[in-house]
Amino acid sequence: MVWEEIVKQSSIAVVGLGSMGLGMARSLLRTGLDVSGCDINPAALDGLKASGGHPFATPAQACENADIAVIVVVNAAQTESVLFGPDGAVAVMKPGSLIISSATMSPADAKALAARAAEKGIHILDAPISGGAAKADEGKLTVMASGSAEAFAKAKPALDAMAETVYELGDAVGIGSSFKIVNQLLAGVHIAAACEAITFAKSLDLDITRVFEVITKSAGNSWMFENRVPRVLAGDYNPRSAVSIFTKDLGIVSDLGRKQKFPLPIASAALQLFVMTEAAGMGGDDDASVARLLARIAGVTLPGVKEEI
Amino acid sequence: MVWEEIVKQSSIAVVGLGSMGLGMARSLLRTGLDVSGCDINPAALDGLKASGGHPFATPAQACENADIAVIVVVNAAQTESVLFGPDGAVAVMKPGSLIISSATMSPADAKALAARAAEKGIHILDAPISGGAAKADEGKLTVMASGSAEAFAKAKPALDAMAETVYELGDAVGIGSSFKIVNQLLAGVHIAAACEAITFAKSLDLDITRVFEVITKSAGNSWMFENRVPRVLAGDYNPRSAVSIFTKDLGIVSDLGRKQKFPLPIASAALQLFVMTEAAGMGGDDDASVARLLARIAGVTLPGVKEEI
Repeated sequence: MVWEEIVKQSSIAVVGLGSMGLGMARSLLRTGLDVSGCDINPAALDGLKASGGHPFATPAQACENADIAVIVVVNAAQTESVLFGPDGAVAVMKPGSLIISSATMSPADAKALAARAAEKGIHILDAPISGGAAKADEGKLTVMASGSAEAFAKAKPALDAMAETVYELGDAVGIGSSFKIVNQLLAGVHIAAACEAITFAKSLDLDITRVFEVITKSAGNSWMFENRVPRVLAGDYNPRSAVSIFTKDLGIVSDLGRKQKFPLPIASAALQLFVMTEAAGMGGDDDASVARLLARIAGVTLPGVKEEI
Repeated sequence: MVWEEIVKQSSIAVVGLGSMGLGMARSLLRTGLDVSGCDINPAALDGLKASGGHPFATPAQACENADIAVIVVVNAAQTESVLFGPDGAVAVMKPGSLIISSATMSPADAKALAARAAEKGIHILDAPISGGAAKADEGKLTVMASGSAEAFAKAKPALDAMAETVYELGDAVGIGSSFKIVNQLLAGVHIAAACEAITFAKSLDLDITRVFEVITKSAGNSWMFENRVPRVLAGDYNPRSAVSIFTKDLGIVSDLGRKQKFPLPIASAALQLFVMTEAAGMGGDDDASVARLLARIAGVTLPGVKEEI
């Protein structure tokens, strides 16, 4: 696929047009901003084009005139490659421009990337996101952000377009990433616990629709129980958020715990459940598939799940 | 201590006047009902008397004229002893009377107790409770109940006085207990995860008051995170609900999982954290003490916690 059109690259670029990035690009476009973007997946580029944005093949092309580059890839390694790899963004961006870094990564990785960008006079806002694809598309994300006052000021029009809530968590890159990691620890544990509990309830012959109704009004409730269990009740494991996302994010949590010499027994148990679910071939399916794994293992009949492994 | 007064035993008795039972007795008294009660702790009997109830030394004495006996002890073994032990309630209660059984126990234990009571023509409502001491005192508990239509009808005035929400979950004893166990699985995991996450956040040098604020508005939130983390922020480990309650309840969860041959990796990890916290001498302290344990182990400075183990 070749992008033959001659267009002036926009002052805002979004690199990484997955379920989150494309929604964020669309939110930027909706406020009248001109948005360039790139992704390694041609279908994602088509999506950007259909929404009125300008697709490019490489980060360098998408970011050539960018005053703000929003990076929404999956981890630190991809962010590093997008920024500093061949055809990377930083080489073409001007001093004083801004990178909004939204992938989940360790605070150390966020700091290292910011230090390298600073050598070129480029600011980084450490700005992990929360809220899921639907909120991304509505411009209603939550952003857990840290960085210099200058980075925040420069980011404002983009953040206003993409987010409902922006937490300004400090002036140092790394703080935003740390907050996101704590959130992901809890989110991952709560998904795994929700799947364990609802499948256990079925093994006890309980009416799991009733269990959902009672638990969501009781002390056992969590945001994730309320959000994920309906997928188990419907037997619908089409990915809204894939198992592999939490294998990755709880992997970052686990790595950081070992580095800090901080024990994380609950997060580790949850990580292993996501690893098992991915190992059983469900890495690309919805993360509620942890329930499917347990149902198959234990011979429990959940809606839409065959009793086999 | 001797209870010299000659009083007519009431038609409602509460056996077990701990933080939950005393509140339930007070809620019954507030609606104008006459309430007898007993507990092995003399201070609890004083509390009942101060609230206008009639204290007795044994279940048999408290329940002699009881049409309804509410049993709010800690587990199946204590419930069995209260009902069928020396000076037990069932020996003195009349056919057609009702036992409201509110201790957390396995469905098999609940069924076994109900079968023995049925031999004497006494009904059991399987009615575990949720909501904590404050809700007990306000008459605003949640009751997860199952039992015959006759048991529900007979229980109505007592349930109306003690509960804001009564879930009628089925006509068989055991269902209510199963729902409670699923709730306790989630509640216990979420307490342990909340403690793990907030202490980890401190180890990352985050402002944990800000972490509380952000997480309670994010996908990582849980009812327990919202309820327990303020205790960690305040460094207040006076027991609202003790560590030993969750060692017990997650123990029941774990036993039932093994009996069912259902794997519970997350609940097991949480159980071990409560066992560790109890082993470290904090069994009688608030269950948020899991955070204190982790802080002491990892040398993290939480409010009010000395860095020693």
